[in-house]
Amino acid sequence: MEQRVSLITLGVADVEESRRFYERLGWRASRASVPGVVTFFQAGGMALALWGRNELAADARIADDGAPRFGRVALAQNVRRREDVAAVLAEAEAAGGRLQRPDADTDWGGRVGYFTDPDGHLWEVAWNPHFTLAPDGALKLPE
Amino acid sequence: MEQRVSLITLGVADVEESRRFYERLGWRASRASVPGVVTFFQAGGMALALWGRNELAADARIADDGAPRFGRVALAQNVRRREDVAAVLAEAEAAGGRLQRPDADTDWGGRVGYFTDPDGHLWEVAWNPHFTLAPDGALKLPE
Repeated sequence: MEQRVSLITLGVADVEESRRFYERLGWRASRASVPGVVTFFQAGGMALALWGRNELAADARIADDGAPRFGRVALAQNVRRREDVAAVLAEAEAAGGRLQRPDADTDWGGRVGYFTDPDGHLWEVAWNPHFTLAPDGALKLPE
Repeated sequence: MEQRVSLITLGVADVEESRRFYERLGWRASRASVPGVVTFFQAGGMALALWGRNELAADARIADDGAPRFGRVALAQNVRRREDVAAVLAEAEAAGGRLQRPDADTDWGGRVGYFTDPDGHLWEVAWNPHFTLAPDGALKLPE
């Protein structure tokens, strides 16, 4: 299995409502999207998809009791400057997200905060001086 | 907010057990990893992190009742050839993953199947003739 991720699918209650949230953050959907059914966003060399949680559960043959809760997954966006953490969290709140944890310094010398999207999916916003961000936003770990 | 994802964190019960699963799949951890605490894998222009689900929940100030269940998120790896779907699913099973749904043709002309990692995180393996895969594995949506 190659060492890469092609797509992250977020199961959502309402694809259009979720799409509008990400569009208010400035994201633009691919024309591969199907209104009301599925939305795709190019995200670097990968894609983020918004799809009905029922459809995702059925497709994966997994039970879904419908409750909102901790999904044990967090997406993160690493930002270029320490002060960008608070700025992105504020943008997310203004777009209708929920501030999950205000930004604060970390014990590893960075700064992080969290917001959740309209379906409660966790997003971390992080400034990490130990990881390299390329001009195009690609993140490079130490090998 | 820029249109990209820097990192996906999977909350896991045992970081070393999870790391060994991904290593059996042929993945190699970054030296940014801290044994027993956190594992990072470079994944294209992004990273995948394995971190204790308790630590992730505490960091995000979110409640975690500890039960395994549908997290409403699926990661996907798109493969180059139709027959690669079954091959990657077989690799994942051999590495200790669980076959969640055997590979089958889709109504949009592709072929997909799902496995779960040792913590039940969903992975879709997909062959999608409508999306472009670059030689380096980057996925490109229609604009």
